[in-house]
Amino acid sequence: MNKMNDIEVIINNKRYNLRGYESEEYLQRIASYINNKHLEFKKQDFYKMLDSEMKSILMDINIADDYFKIKNQIKELEMENEYKGKEIYDLKHELISAQTKLDVGLKEMEALTKELNEAQKKIIRLETELEDKNRT
Amino acid sequence: MNKMNDIEVIINNKRYNLRGYESEEYLQRIASYINNKHLEFKKQDFYKMLDSEMKSILMDINIADDYFKIKNQIKELEMENEYKGKEIYDLKHELISAQTKLDVGLKEMEALTKELNEAQKKIIRLETELEDKNRT
Repeated sequence: MNKMNDIEVIINNKRYNLRGYESEEYLQRIASYINNKHLEFKKQDFYKMLDSEMKSILMDINIADDYFKIKNQIKELEMENEYKGKEIYDLKHELISAQTKLDVGLKEMEALTKELNEAQKKIIRLETELEDKNRT
Repeated sequence: MNKMNDIEVIINNKRYNLRGYESEEYLQRIASYINNKHLEFKKQDFYKMLDSEMKSILMDINIADDYFKIKNQIKELEMENEYKGKEIYDLKHELISAQTKLDVGLKEMEALTKELNEAQKKIIRLETELEDKNRT
């Protein structure tokens, strides 16, 4: 019981003492959220005519509705995350493939440059040989 | 009022007629969620000693707690989404850069191949010329 907090909250103009592991700040946020719902309900004419049991059920349904709506939002966000994850996977593969092509291209270019150098050397050799022949 | 549905739900063993725009399936899901909470509460000894008002407040807080806990998850998912979005942006840029390098490389390779072909032709020409000289 040591870690438990005794917290006083005011909900719908009544004082309640709550005992729990949650922080005071968190419970006050919850109380304020519920109080806003009470205020919203009280603005509506039909609500005044309901008995306390029906009012309580409507409150439960209303909060549960927020919960389920946000749960759907989470599903959408999770799907978006999954989609983005797949896109990242695909892009990484494309990048690896492009870099592999680049590496292969660089090696081919190196080989071509070497072959060209050899050819140019051979040309100089042949031209010199030909010049010698012409001179004699 | 035409689009409104009249739906009967059973919550905590009592029948309620609800009128709303939500689908029957959705409201039954909410009712079932609330009923599970009632069952969980009833398993606990302290709950039996509470008056109906306190029971109702505890239910509200409990559902609101689910709502707030899941709301934090949204923040995390949104951050994850944002992070992944940035990663996608960076990867796309890297990919464009790699593809540009690849294009440049291909053009250079084409130029080198052409130069090599010219050099090889020149070698053949020079070799033929030299052979002719040797023959005379």
